[in-house]
Amino acid sequence: MFEHLETPRLILDRGRLQRNAGRLLERAREKKVALRPHLKTAKSVDVALLAKDGERSGITVSTLKEAEHFAAHGFSDILYAVGISANKFDRVRAIAERWGEAPLLITDDPGTARQAAAYAETHRCTFDFLVEVDCGEHRGGLPVGSDKIVETARILAQSPGTRLRGVMSHAGHSYATKLREEVAKVAEAERRAAVDSAAMLAEAGFACEIVSVGSTPTVLFAESLDGVTEVRCGIYLFWDLAQYSRDVCSLDDIALSVLSCVIGHNRQGSAIVLDAGALALSRDLGANTHRDDVKYGYVCDAMTLERIGGLSFDVVHQEHGTVTVSDPAVFERLPVGSMVRVLPNHACLTAAPYDSYTVIEDGRTLGEWDRISGW
Amino acid sequence: MFEHLETPRLILDRGRLQRNAGRLLERAREKKVALRPHLKTAKSVDVALLAKDGERSGITVSTLKEAEHFAAHGFSDILYAVGISANKFDRVRAIAERWGEAPLLITDDPGTARQAAAYAETHRCTFDFLVEVDCGEHRGGLPVGSDKIVETARILAQSPGTRLRGVMSHAGHSYATKLREEVAKVAEAERRAAVDSAAMLAEAGFACEIVSVGSTPTVLFAESLDGVTEVRCGIYLFWDLAQYSRDVCSLDDIALSVLSCVIGHNRQGSAIVLDAGALALSRDLGANTHRDDVKYGYVCDAMTLERIGGLSFDVVHQEHGTVTVSDPAVFERLPVGSMVRVLPNHACLTAAPYDSYTVIEDGRTLGEWDRISGW
Repeated sequence: MFEHLETPRLILDRGRLQRNAGRLLERAREKKVALRPHLKTAKSVDVALLAKDGERSGITVSTLKEAEHFAAHGFSDILYAVGISANKFDRVRAIAERWGEAPLLITDDPGTARQAAAYAETHRCTFDFLVEVDCGEHRGGLPVGSDKIVETARILAQSPGTRLRGVMSHAGHSYATKLREEVAKVAEAERRAAVDSAAMLAEAGFACEIVSVGSTPTVLFAESLDGVTEVRCGIYLFWDLAQYSRDVCSLDDIALSVLSCVIGHNRQGSAIVLDAGALALSRDLGANTHRDDVKYGYVCDAMTLERIGGLSFDVVHQEHGTVTVSDPAVFERLPVGSMVRVLPNHACLTAAPYDSYTVIEDGRTLGEWDRISGW
Repeated sequence: MFEHLETPRLILDRGRLQRNAGRLLERAREKKVALRPHLKTAKSVDVALLAKDGERSGITVSTLKEAEHFAAHGFSDILYAVGISANKFDRVRAIAERWGEAPLLITDDPGTARQAAAYAETHRCTFDFLVEVDCGEHRGGLPVGSDKIVETARILAQSPGTRLRGVMSHAGHSYATKLREEVAKVAEAERRAAVDSAAMLAEAGFACEIVSVGSTPTVLFAESLDGVTEVRCGIYLFWDLAQYSRDVCSLDDIALSVLSCVIGHNRQGSAIVLDAGALALSRDLGANTHRDDVKYGYVCDAMTLERIGGLSFDVVHQEHGTVTVSDPAVFERLPVGSMVRVLPNHACLTAAPYDSYTVIEDGRTLGEWDRISGW
């Protein structure tokens, strides 16, 4: 089914995607929380509709371009989950003017809250906010218990142009461990950061309609989500070797792969040369922390997606990749012009530069699904 | 000049670019070789015109999308410098049909040469080729002296639909050292691989009109380019910290930077949070081999491009970056909402996802230059 396709090309297995989407829809139902899938990996309306079981509302994005794209396709209640800055207010307002609703914003900074309030009042628009709380990752977010949480919330709640909708935390450091009991501890810290902050705000007179937490591992392995209203996660839609390396998914769950063509045999260097490199695969090596044979990805049979002779994608140049071959039989198995599929180290970065997915299911090509990239 | 610009954003300093372009134009004139700049980094017509001093001919690209883009803008004699495979023949032919000339192709495989010959005969088109020779990098290319060089050349020269135009080699391993005498040795191996292969082919009765070599370090530091007809290089247009780490350029030569906004202060984690992450900067860490303080890039004053307090871009998430701050004064120097510019680790990968350059010169913004990405 792949012989005539140009390469490099992003392949998405619809059956696996649907199964992965269903698993988290079920988990959210079971835990009685809303699921606000993070679409920074997929950046695709078709994927979003599977993730939301057809509903065009309640999603997370990582860029304002994604917010525009989903708004243009009828989605509402879009959380832009990167701390807002004043240089993006014009674009946020333009989204509200064009599609009737600004994305839900986050901040951890009273100064930014003040700027947003002033901007919204001047421009007669409304910006909705969550206050971001740090649950231990030390990326975005105010420390739990900080006076600035109340200070920020007060500005947002009391200004005519801004609304305080709630609080959010994100446990990106759940990726640092592969032990489920450790992930469960991080999940509890994430939950507590959000729920305790919401309680602190309630005490100060500011109600939180939204208490939002999440990362794929913490959503899957949290013991309690009491007090949480919604969960955010994204990589569960596609999975990748970084998640596999942490035992969060199996190889059969991975829905995303890169189709690549063998463009040369370098026998003197014991290498097969492929037309997928640092752009087609990304330079992410994160999975190797827990599983050092991953390199840039596993080299697999294009049809069956079975790994070929323990091969890993060793070296990437911009548009070339090389795979070290110790068994010369591999040169016969993979002649110049033949195809492989590569299971990616980190799906979010691998997918990023592509304009579309070639969607397959049960050994058939279903067509192309658009995706967006850039800012 | 940057306050109102949205971020992340790719900034290109036209003055530096022009100076960099001039340096290699001069070097090629001095060495009496043609300059065929590699535009895989820039992917921009405006940059190509500076690199070629206005001439729309004789360039190198890394994707067929680039070949189409430059052909559509009137460029001819475009070398597609990644080994061709049969699944791309249709697209190559479409370029010839639409713009009058197929890109110049490369191969190191007799089987591919045979397929190309059969395809071109069937479809009544003409494919021009260089034979790729390995000068020690062990990526693409036949070993020097291999019988397959003559075998491949014979197929290309004797088939009605294909033409043998010459040979090429690329010393990507020139990046492995920062010692100029080592680079000069690699440059000589690159030259010898191409020139000796051309001589071998001449002896077999196949003339090589083109003898093509290059990588930025080898073109700059080669002692002899005798027998070479053209040089290929690209990173010299922008430079980056990877080249700086190898003493090939100075910090003042680097023409490319990423404008990013401070979106948070994480004082409990001693970090400043910025809106540039793994996509806006790339995950390339190559420069750290020779200079381990680079990380993902140097954090610089947005206006002067002076590095701020020895700060490096430590950690990247998809759209967030964090910079570890040991001196609390940095929090005052860089308040939330302020701008920095980041000098990139590896310009080729940093530029890749952007749709345009914001071009500046002498403290003024000149406008946007389009660039392309993807395949």
